[in-house]
Amino acid sequence: MTINVLFAATEARWQDYRAPLTEAFREHDLDVSLKTDLPPEEVDYIVYAPNSAVQDFTPFTRCKAVLNLWAGVEGIVGNETLTMPLARMVDPALTRGMVEWVAGHVLRHHLEIDYFLARQQGEWCPRVPPLASERSVTILGLGELGTACGQTLADLGFPVTGWSRSPKRIEGIATVHGDDGLDAALAQAQILVLLLPKTPETENVLDADALARLPRGAAVINPGRGHLIDDEALLAALDAGTVGHATLDVFREEPLPADHPFWSHERVTVTPHIASETRPASASRVIAENIRRGEEGEPLLHLVDRDRGY
Amino acid sequence: MTINVLFAATEARWQDYRAPLTEAFREHDLDVSLKTDLPPEEVDYIVYAPNSAVQDFTPFTRCKAVLNLWAGVEGIVGNETLTMPLARMVDPALTRGMVEWVAGHVLRHHLEIDYFLARQQGEWCPRVPPLASERSVTILGLGELGTACGQTLADLGFPVTGWSRSPKRIEGIATVHGDDGLDAALAQAQILVLLLPKTPETENVLDADALARLPRGAAVINPGRGHLIDDEALLAALDAGTVGHATLDVFREEPLPADHPFWSHERVTVTPHIASETRPASASRVIAENIRRGEEGEPLLHLVDRDRGY
Repeated sequence: MTINVLFAATEARWQDYRAPLTEAFREHDLDVSLKTDLPPEEVDYIVYAPNSAVQDFTPFTRCKAVLNLWAGVEGIVGNETLTMPLARMVDPALTRGMVEWVAGHVLRHHLEIDYFLARQQGEWCPRVPPLASERSVTILGLGELGTACGQTLADLGFPVTGWSRSPKRIEGIATVHGDDGLDAALAQAQILVLLLPKTPETENVLDADALARLPRGAAVINPGRGHLIDDEALLAALDAGTVGHATLDVFREEPLPADHPFWSHERVTVTPHIASETRPASASRVIAENIRRGEEGEPLLHLVDRDRGY
Repeated sequence: MTINVLFAATEARWQDYRAPLTEAFREHDLDVSLKTDLPPEEVDYIVYAPNSAVQDFTPFTRCKAVLNLWAGVEGIVGNETLTMPLARMVDPALTRGMVEWVAGHVLRHHLEIDYFLARQQGEWCPRVPPLASERSVTILGLGELGTACGQTLADLGFPVTGWSRSPKRIEGIATVHGDDGLDAALAQAQILVLLLPKTPETENVLDADALARLPRGAAVINPGRGHLIDDEALLAALDAGTVGHATLDVFREEPLPADHPFWSHERVTVTPHIASETRPASASRVIAENIRRGEEGEPLLHLVDRDRGY
């Protein structure tokens, strides 16, 4: 029997995803009717982006699951009309892209690449950075992305400490948890990478108190969520030199407004939300696999825990 | 019996090495007298830098080996008075430092970090690089350093091709050799890393012909030897856009003269010979291990093949 899948996202995404989803359904031997418009009561699955027009899920009476196209679900997890299972996107290509971006910017700070880029006027100023084994990196957040980044950084030779709310064990990484663990993780973060999800508990995790615990001159790298950082406190710490540099890819408001002080601050690098990008081909295979699982009564991948919020 | 070791390098190196060598000899249970001045006929081993005052080895009649402090031996390998075994430095810390520098600059080019660093004026211009799996890297030279860099880049997801004069097999890297292999390796080098030793055969390996074989817009990274590149040909290829960027750490003349066009070229990044730096603590352990081997009649590590020149 034909499976009715509603594609509920922007028109631009439809252009990106129509062909790769069709191809992925064929690869998975799924007989799917994929449309951007269907009578709600006939919809079996919704492929969803939180910025779509669909916000009331009540009419979707037989829908078996909502399959989010984004890794982040904070724009949808609190929606009380959404009573069916919700899966977030864990795209292997997105994880690889994040690992590459994080490794590149950690090495950029470690090797002081900006220092050398700024000295191209005939000034020969050798200075040799310590080895990675002498540069400790802390990652806040040990989900899919934090774990993958931590393991790659450990493979590159950095001593890596990872913090998560609940205890975890990950090969090659020193893991800590809870409030005491957070203080210890911050205290040794010569380079700090933020990869926590956005939940009420993680908002402003990097506030003035937390910033004050970092080693003087630490680098802060945020490819996670804008809300993890208290912007005013970070600017004050950069002005005071407590924090040596911040490389920020995500912001409370995006695009970052042109008059935001981050743009012009000499110790801040802004990148335009490029660290994590879902790739249609691999994301479509994840969606197709979850529909296959739904049809065969297997548990869905990457189900969201509504209480935790991710 | 006490082993007489002559330290023949600059005064600055003596300050760097005196304590770590003494410590390493103690760790290896070697009874060594380490001095910067000894009667030549009493010297058992010479710890050597090619820029030292010692250039005539004829008087060192009982010397069992010359242990080079540098990875490069081109300044000494042709010295006909040097008839005893010559070992070059393979410092595990130097290898790690090189791997970190190469990984950092390959990722910098891959992620187009310079593009984003140049756009900090309030302009939100998202553009997402391909994944590493779609960016092919070629390494010329598969010695200790080229092999280590290639394996790390492969672990980061890049398809890596390695070229060497004679055939080699290395896990995770596509290897090619000989003249035909060189052409093929260049043709797919979106990022090219030069890690060949300096020998008569490798001089100007990257000449106008070789540069013309690179994919348009390729990045060239040279942490190897300045003489590998025909500077004029590289500047012409940069001006023509054949080569998109060159990041150069080594030069025919060092320090690079302040009026050299590399400094001011917008497509060139100069770093002041920092990619490979021998660290006294780990290098001293390599020297001590070789003296222990010499005393116990075991083959020395990292012996130089005089015919090949490295």
